[in-house]
Amino acid sequence: MNIKFSAADLFEKVKERKPLVHQITNFVTVNDCANATLAIGGSPVMTSSPKEVEAMVKLADALVLNFGTIDEKSLEAMEIAGRTANSRNIPVILDPVGVGATPYRTEKASELLKKVSFQIIRGNASEIHRLIGGDIVTRGVDSEELAISNEALAVSAAKELNSVVVVSGAIDAVSNGKHTSLIDNGNVLLTNVTGTGCMATALIGAFSGITDDYYAAAVAGISTMSISGEIAAETLQKHEGTGTFRVRLIDAISRMDKEMWMNEVKMNEEITH
Amino acid sequence: MNIKFSAADLFEKVKERKPLVHQITNFVTVNDCANATLAIGGSPVMTSSPKEVEAMVKLADALVLNFGTIDEKSLEAMEIAGRTANSRNIPVILDPVGVGATPYRTEKASELLKKVSFQIIRGNASEIHRLIGGDIVTRGVDSEELAISNEALAVSAAKELNSVVVVSGAIDAVSNGKHTSLIDNGNVLLTNVTGTGCMATALIGAFSGITDDYYAAAVAGISTMSISGEIAAETLQKHEGTGTFRVRLIDAISRMDKEMWMNEVKMNEEITH
Amino acid sequence: MNIKFSAADLFEKVKERKPLVHQITNFVTVNDCANATLAIGGSPVMTSSPKEVEAMVKLADALVLNFGTIDEKSLEAMEIAGRTANSRNIPVILDPVGVGATPYRTEKASELLKKVSFQIIRGNASEIHRLIGGDIVTRGVDSEELAISNEALAVSAAKELNSVVVVSGAIDAVSNGKHTSLIDNGNVLLTNVTGTGCMATALIGAFSGITDDYYAAAVAGISTMSISGEIAAETLQKHEGTGTFRVRLIDAISRMDKEMWMNEVKMNEEITH
Repeated sequence: MNIKFSAADLFEKVKERKPLVHQITNFVTVNDCANATLAIGGSPVMTSSPKEVEAMVKLADALVLNFGTIDEKSLEAMEIAGRTANSRNIPVILDPVGVGATPYRTEKASELLKKVSFQIIRGNASEIHRLIGGDIVTRGVDSEELAISNEALAVSAAKELNSVVVVSGAIDAVSNGKHTSLIDNGNVLLTNVTGTGCMATALIGAFSGITDDYYAAAVAGISTMSISGEIAAETLQKHEGTGTFRVRLIDAISRMDKEMWMNEVKMNEEITH
Repeated sequence: MNIKFSAADLFEKVKERKPLVHQITNFVTVNDCANATLAIGGSPVMTSSPKEVEAMVKLADALVLNFGTIDEKSLEAMEIAGRTANSRNIPVILDPVGVGATPYRTEKASELLKKVSFQIIRGNASEIHRLIGGDIVTRGVDSEELAISNEALAVSAAKELNSVVVVSGAIDAVSNGKHTSLIDNGNVLLTNVTGTGCMATALIGAFSGITDDYYAAAVAGISTMSISGEIAAETLQKHEGTGTFRVRLIDAISRMDKEMWMNEVKMNEEITH
Repeated sequence: MNIKFSAADLFEKVKERKPLVHQITNFVTVNDCANATLAIGGSPVMTSSPKEVEAMVKLADALVLNFGTIDEKSLEAMEIAGRTANSRNIPVILDPVGVGATPYRTEKASELLKKVSFQIIRGNASEIHRLIGGDIVTRGVDSEELAISNEALAVSAAKELNSVVVVSGAIDAVSNGKHTSLIDNGNVLLTNVTGTGCMATALIGAFSGITDDYYAAAVAGISTMSISGEIAAETLQKHEGTGTFRVRLIDAISRMDKEMWMNEVKMNEEITH
């Protein structure tokens, strides 16, 4: 089936099934992630205590692990929750925020990749490049420019990491190693508010909680964020700025449905093998 | 005195007295709780370090303990702060978020109820049901449907827990075991943004900081949130969604006064004994 | 050069240079601080794990330490990051939130002042007064009225603490001990939303990341917040409240440029020595 139709069908389903998305995430954008999850139709739960993540993830339809503000305790929780999810075939999604910025972050991501199997990984180009052994130094949590295209990077990383990989940027690339979708939606204002990457991963988490087609879930999630950025920017008045943009972003996510998505998405798929 | 007039009188008083509301809460909705407290006229302080909660709560007019993201450290802080508040007759309000979802959460709530005396407890039906020994399994942090009405549950729980109990839902029930108020305000969008329950508890905390009539404080707090949900939803335009709804919710709380509340509240009181 | 022109020149520069501002801050307003930093043109990174702050701060252009919700772990991270920044001439900015409210907070601030050299310190009058040995008891995290003017307090504190000091309030005073600027912008609604003080410090952090003139950076940062409060309040409609005000505050920060700032700022400078 065409990827566009597979992804489109998920919008009604997520609202019907209301998947429980357990997220062990950072303390900067945790509220945004919970609201984005609710806006698309999921049910978020954000506990990160090692004392209860095993019991909580057993109730969940998907698990999101976000590296934004890792510490010893959250890493312990991620490992417990990740292993439990793997043993129960609950999909696990990684957002390697800031990997490449410090040796600690890079090492811990590498360790976690050995212990937990991820069905989807979403990051910007520098983060994904670093995950597959590139030596770029990320400056803080924002992306650096690379010589390699997002498309080529997504394909390589999907093969090497044996996961669906989303490289988000001006053009978002989603690859399962064999098929690759390029999404040409978005707006530069998405880089001027915090949490848009984290929220995209939360949306991918929600969609992956209702289907085994993780490639379609990743396409639906990342494109929802990029399209919402476009819609939010279009309605911005002269006297408004990034505060209003951020509110309209959640507005657009909460209004997204199959019809709106089909009308707005600009994507094509390439068969890479 | 009529509960409606007792509650109505608190709106001016909270703005005059600006009660200091110490909140040991979760990291998902902590910012929303602080802003809701400020919006109604209170002054929030959110420290949760066991090293300083004893000194901080001594300055406070009310203490709110919220279970959203409990861990060992926050539970230790809750116990210290709760005991200190009890010894000084500072009202303590419990929000048992997610109790019933994991054994850890249920056990820790049960332990805290033995160590700290709560003047008001607010939760959804599943959480309150579980607090009094019901065996429902909560799915994440959202409520399940129960066979018992919110009213009957609030009355039972108030008697068993020896506290004012608020069961929030489509109809909010507030009971002190003898008198029970039913509030028929609200909007379904309140379940589509995170933190509306936590904010309701924060508002109850603010009102309980200015009166000994905790039943009236609970009615004023929960009804303010439900009415604000109605007002926020009424003004929503076609192109707006849950992002704007969330902003308007705080707008409505900040504009709530005695007159507006008297005009909007739909409640009746039943004498249960 | 005139302080007004020195400060004005920073608005274009911060957008060109996009300084990386490492912030070890509180979990209440951390999202607001990140968004304010992005809105003015900086790049925020908020990690506070003692395991990686040394590596992270080496990449940064400025370091902000905020006392809002200190605990043992964040204090350890602040000391490591502060010493590292000092050894590399990266400016360090202190926001002593709530100092004076509990002995723990006051002692820890005093200890940190001995271990780390701060280039800029911003607080309300009670916090700054307490930092220089005043005995006022702060009630929670809000300011008390003092007999001394903000101007006199800023001058004394700047001399005693050997730092640029910002005392924010109805009139903001910024002093380096020799020169003192008084800024008469602002709106009372700034006290009705959480995080406006923290965001002001984040803005000062962003400006201090692109200049050695910390006095000008402090003036640019604090005045941006006060002017934005004015602009946000001016456009508020009758049916709007503090929720919308908070959104417009970020809007105004994101639209602030040299021309707008020159038109709006109401300040004069006094030579104090």
